[in-house]
Amino acid sequence: MIVVMSTGSGEKEIKEVVKRLEQAGFKGHLSTGVERTVIGVVGAAPGLSDLRETLVLLPGVDDVVPISKPYKLSSREFQPVNTVVNVNGVRIGGGQLVVMAGPCAVETEEQAMSTAHAVKAAGASILRGGAYKPSTSPYQFRGLGEEGLKLLAMARQETGLPLITEVLSPGDVDLVSQYSDILQIGTRNMQNFVLLDEVGKSNKPVLLKRGLSATIQEWLLAVEYVLSQGNRQVILCERGIRTFETHTRNTMDISAIPAIHSLSHLPVIADPSHGTGRQDLVTPMSLASVAAGADGLMIEVHPTPHLALKDGAQSLDFEQFSELMNRIAPVAAAVGRNIAGRES
Amino acid sequence: MIVVMSTGSGEKEIKEVVKRLEQAGFKGHLSTGVERTVIGVVGAAPGLSDLRETLVLLPGVDDVVPISKPYKLSSREFQPVNTVVNVNGVRIGGGQLVVMAGPCAVETEEQAMSTAHAVKAAGASILRGGAYKPSTSPYQFRGLGEEGLKLLAMARQETGLPLITEVLSPGDVDLVSQYSDILQIGTRNMQNFVLLDEVGKSNKPVLLKRGLSATIQEWLLAVEYVLSQGNRQVILCERGIRTFETHTRNTMDISAIPAIHSLSHLPVIADPSHGTGRQDLVTPMSLASVAAGADGLMIEVHPTPHLALKDGAQSLDFEQFSELMNRIAPVAAAVGRNIAGRES
Amino acid sequence: MIVVMSTGSGEKEIKEVVKRLEQAGFKGHLSTGVERTVIGVVGAAPGLSDLRETLVLLPGVDDVVPISKPYKLSSREFQPVNTVVNVNGVRIGGGQLVVMAGPCAVETEEQAMSTAHAVKAAGASILRGGAYKPSTSPYQFRGLGEEGLKLLAMARQETGLPLITEVLSPGDVDLVSQYSDILQIGTRNMQNFVLLDEVGKSNKPVLLKRGLSATIQEWLLAVEYVLSQGNRQVILCERGIRTFETHTRNTMDISAIPAIHSLSHLPVIADPSHGTGRQDLVTPMSLASVAAGADGLMIEVHPTPHLALKDGAQSLDFEQFSELMNRIAPVAAAVGRNIAGRES
Amino acid sequence: MIVVMSTGSGEKEIKEVVKRLEQAGFKGHLSTGVERTVIGVVGAAPGLSDLRETLVLLPGVDDVVPISKPYKLSSREFQPVNTVVNVNGVRIGGGQLVVMAGPCAVETEEQAMSTAHAVKAAGASILRGGAYKPSTSPYQFRGLGEEGLKLLAMARQETGLPLITEVLSPGDVDLVSQYSDILQIGTRNMQNFVLLDEVGKSNKPVLLKRGLSATIQEWLLAVEYVLSQGNRQVILCERGIRTFETHTRNTMDISAIPAIHSLSHLPVIADPSHGTGRQDLVTPMSLASVAAGADGLMIEVHPTPHLALKDGAQSLDFEQFSELMNRIAPVAAAVGRNIAGRES
Repeated sequence: MIVVMSTGSGEKEIKEVVKRLEQAGFKGHLSTGVERTVIGVVGAAPGLSDLRETLVLLPGVDDVVPISKPYKLSSREFQPVNTVVNVNGVRIGGGQLVVMAGPCAVETEEQAMSTAHAVKAAGASILRGGAYKPSTSPYQFRGLGEEGLKLLAMARQETGLPLITEVLSPGDVDLVSQYSDILQIGTRNMQNFVLLDEVGKSNKPVLLKRGLSATIQEWLLAVEYVLSQGNRQVILCERGIRTFETHTRNTMDISAIPAIHSLSHLPVIADPSHGTGRQDLVTPMSLASVAAGADGLMIEVHPTPHLALKDGAQSLDFEQFSELMNRIAPVAAAVGRNIAGRES
Repeated sequence: MIVVMSTGSGEKEIKEVVKRLEQAGFKGHLSTGVERTVIGVVGAAPGLSDLRETLVLLPGVDDVVPISKPYKLSSREFQPVNTVVNVNGVRIGGGQLVVMAGPCAVETEEQAMSTAHAVKAAGASILRGGAYKPSTSPYQFRGLGEEGLKLLAMARQETGLPLITEVLSPGDVDLVSQYSDILQIGTRNMQNFVLLDEVGKSNKPVLLKRGLSATIQEWLLAVEYVLSQGNRQVILCERGIRTFETHTRNTMDISAIPAIHSLSHLPVIADPSHGTGRQDLVTPMSLASVAAGADGLMIEVHPTPHLALKDGAQSLDFEQFSELMNRIAPVAAAVGRNIAGRES
Repeated sequence: MIVVMSTGSGEKEIKEVVKRLEQAGFKGHLSTGVERTVIGVVGAAPGLSDLRETLVLLPGVDDVVPISKPYKLSSREFQPVNTVVNVNGVRIGGGQLVVMAGPCAVETEEQAMSTAHAVKAAGASILRGGAYKPSTSPYQFRGLGEEGLKLLAMARQETGLPLITEVLSPGDVDLVSQYSDILQIGTRNMQNFVLLDEVGKSNKPVLLKRGLSATIQEWLLAVEYVLSQGNRQVILCERGIRTFETHTRNTMDISAIPAIHSLSHLPVIADPSHGTGRQDLVTPMSLASVAAGADGLMIEVHPTPHLALKDGAQSLDFEQFSELMNRIAPVAAAVGRNIAGRES
Repeated sequence: MIVVMSTGSGEKEIKEVVKRLEQAGFKGHLSTGVERTVIGVVGAAPGLSDLRETLVLLPGVDDVVPISKPYKLSSREFQPVNTVVNVNGVRIGGGQLVVMAGPCAVETEEQAMSTAHAVKAAGASILRGGAYKPSTSPYQFRGLGEEGLKLLAMARQETGLPLITEVLSPGDVDLVSQYSDILQIGTRNMQNFVLLDEVGKSNKPVLLKRGLSATIQEWLLAVEYVLSQGNRQVILCERGIRTFETHTRNTMDISAIPAIHSLSHLPVIADPSHGTGRQDLVTPMSLASVAAGADGLMIEVHPTPHLALKDGAQSLDFEQFSELMNRIAPVAAAVGRNIAGRES
């Protein structure tokens, strides 16, 4: 951290800053420039960000600039080697492309079963599906709850595909863990810190979606909640951020994929269904994500999207999904990957 | 809702849309223009927004445009008369300006007590303070928990000021309700729907902060969760939204204040402390909020902001707060309000 | 500027950075911390921001952090005393509130004349009106051109109100200067650097609107173009920024008003007409702007807004404008200002 | 366009709206729902968007919803077949991937020449380079001007590569046209309508970058300025939009590439250099753009990026560019394209 003194400040103000730093257990290292003095803060990091808040109020201080990254356990500096998350033999982050697919929300046994079989046949290696659905409006469909979990578990058993489903509340973590192989934290809960603590204590891998307006740094700090509770099996999922553009539901930040790979050792996948909100953009954005180095994809599939109870507009039907898988294969190959569980 | 057919579509596609509408219990009303046909959807509203998702996938459909507002109970149309939230005799939304003030986080008994007395002396009529603090990083101060609630309750008892404090988790609603007069839902939890359901079932007034990147419509839909559970005592709080600007922590959307007053019957207050993140901007933005018609203010106050454990940079000291109250009074008077509980 | 070395870097990389700094005419001042070394860059400022771009590429460099503000002439540090822009005796930035009002676009002689008389009668001290209109679409009304300038000049002569109008192109600066007392640069031209150079060479005061997605720093750098050409008569105008919110046309960043007053000596006014795009929000946002310390307001007025050729939805009619002026007066008084040219 | 009446409105208000529509040359077509009436506006499109502004002010009108796209000449509906822009035999939009590469700014003859030869050798088919540079600050390097154009023309002659360079001002269009094969309009000038008119009158192909906070619709409307002046040779270029994320300079909206292909017949290319601002992200984002269907790429290349006068941090050196071309080739092949001018 660097304390930048204002051009008009003098010795008295500098002494006051150094004194405050020492009270907090740090040392101040002065550097006197032509126009102003800057004070380097030397010492161990914890508590620095709260300290920053208060230093800025001292007389003569113009700005306080952080220079360390506030996340540790998720950083590439902490662990240079890639984390590989192993879900019943499916390895995420290990070089292969892992495709998770299934309905936005489970509606009926037949819908769940037929979709599970269809995505498996097309080459998906993990089944996704929602039983607890966050909805902007209380008057929309909110999922089947535990009944939905049971249908998903049946589909898992029949197809052998591991299951990922969302958990919305700390009180549901145990229940959802009984059915699901991966716990998904949705975009609206990225900073639900009580929930993050709770899944951090579970022994299930966690997939953490990026918040609607979260910076990459905030996203990695949310991951830090899970990791610091002892759970090191975390997958990140880019699913679009909120911008002024209205043509798409969100704006996919594809550059977050290589950025995460550079900053962190954790795997990162892409969700072009929520990232675009448009069926016609799912395929090109899937290809783009793979080309940018995504470790996997999460795709919404429905037997009859135009009759879906939720998110039909962004769901692919079975044929479209199969076509997508066929188009992904050569792009994956072009960047040195192959699709997990699919014969090449 | 309006279904806009594409210019190239014909009778067959139109019939298909009308059929789909009728299956879902609606009627289609055709309007044939020079370039294209539009189909008005006639029928009761529930389920419309999920239907919209699927109509857009039908052949020949160019766009589906919602025309009804998706929130009901919070709308001015549903209830033309202003809701007044009564908190132990302090009336929010009743014409007077209600000032809530206190520390971001409770740290010690002395800090809590001295701040409570100071804000009361300066004219605040509700005490704010945090015991459970959401922090971007797990390594930052996260509040004293129930110990903090007890300190706040002591401060309430001594000063007679009603108390507002934040609840972070559905499991804590009962506990926090034992101590607090108003339940605060923070910005990161605006779409924590399980928590919204839970406070909707309580009999305490709820203050709901706007989400970091929430539209006004999404904010009112979040309110709808609380109202539809039976709790009609809701206060909205504008606290800044996320934009590209980095000079301030957030960008306060002051225009949301008159916009909410036009769309809804619920009271709306402003939080310039979080809205700006800068001590020097709290006063001008407080004045602006009052001039724009805010029903109240929420201000962070600390005995020694430069030593605060949290959010020091945006906290006022006692003298600054007192000065703020003095400057607010004439602006409030100029827009026909006076400060609740303060002798004029 | 501070060069932050990565934790793994050693003496060799540090030497390379220092060498590069010296080649560019600067000195490097080392500060060795527990985790990493930072290098303070000492020397005069010009060229620093281009240098920053290249330092970041050197081996072992983690980040390069600017600490000086890149604008000079517009900064409060350069000139502590407020600039007062004098327009034919109307002083902007001198403590009084200056109201500029008139039609978005001049349409006819009668419209121009009647509006000029009405805004004068209600207490405006400067007449605004557009002859060259930037339109998102080429198929919209683009203004009357020089014919419009002539009508505005007539209105100025009859009422005695100084005139402000927009100039869109470097080639039009001379022509517009013959008619107008203030040259307005619109939001879409805030970074039209050739145009900024050109008005910087003129002897007319310049009003520079904030760009649609411009940071405060970029805005002040745009001002710097005008000032560095020798023209020191610049007024800033906050008119809303682009965010995800769709209820309003733009989101007014009211906090920019006190922020500019803190960073710069130049006057800043507010334009709630473009800032909101909604007639019903113009008055509350005018009051908020005045309370936050704006040096003036710019308001669109039209005899019959529902028949206006441009921006009718955000224009006030004569009665609404008169009512606005009556409501502004007490708020201005409450913050220690009075309205220029209006008997109190 | 649809006029949505408020729930409380009656026959009188509806009649008033219909009367106003008829005055403006349109017809109103009523559709009476359970809760409210909507009025479809029937008639030819020009002037509709200005009319919308004023209808919203009529009593009883709740909202006015546009349903037609306001751009015509750039739309896929107007011209179903792809436009192919032919630049001295290099065909953009014709199925092959066209790579434009070169220095951000021309600095010296040697830099221009060596870069031109290097990018040609690596497989680029168009040379890019800036002589007139828009700079956020007036104190930064602003380009060599006409001297730079001459150096670029020399490099073109030696290598045979067609040239693209930016024009900043309407007054420079003729001069730049004498040297350049494509006129580039930069992001800050996307809504410089006078400049758009001027290049619309020239006979050179135009490359129009997306504005920093421009919606796709606004971008296509800016294109419409050029097309409506008679110049139909337009290329769009996605180069990142402004969001809250600070890790990258901008956020590349890769989904704009397939969106433009769906909405328009014009070719669209990607600029990952400006889109990310980071050398290390240029390659993955180039691959992503190609996978998403971009018709070309624009890449900044410099002999020694760490010594560049401008934008060094996002420039590739010769070896990095050559490596990029090698990595693009298989991804292009995977989506059915090959690189123009490169032996496969």
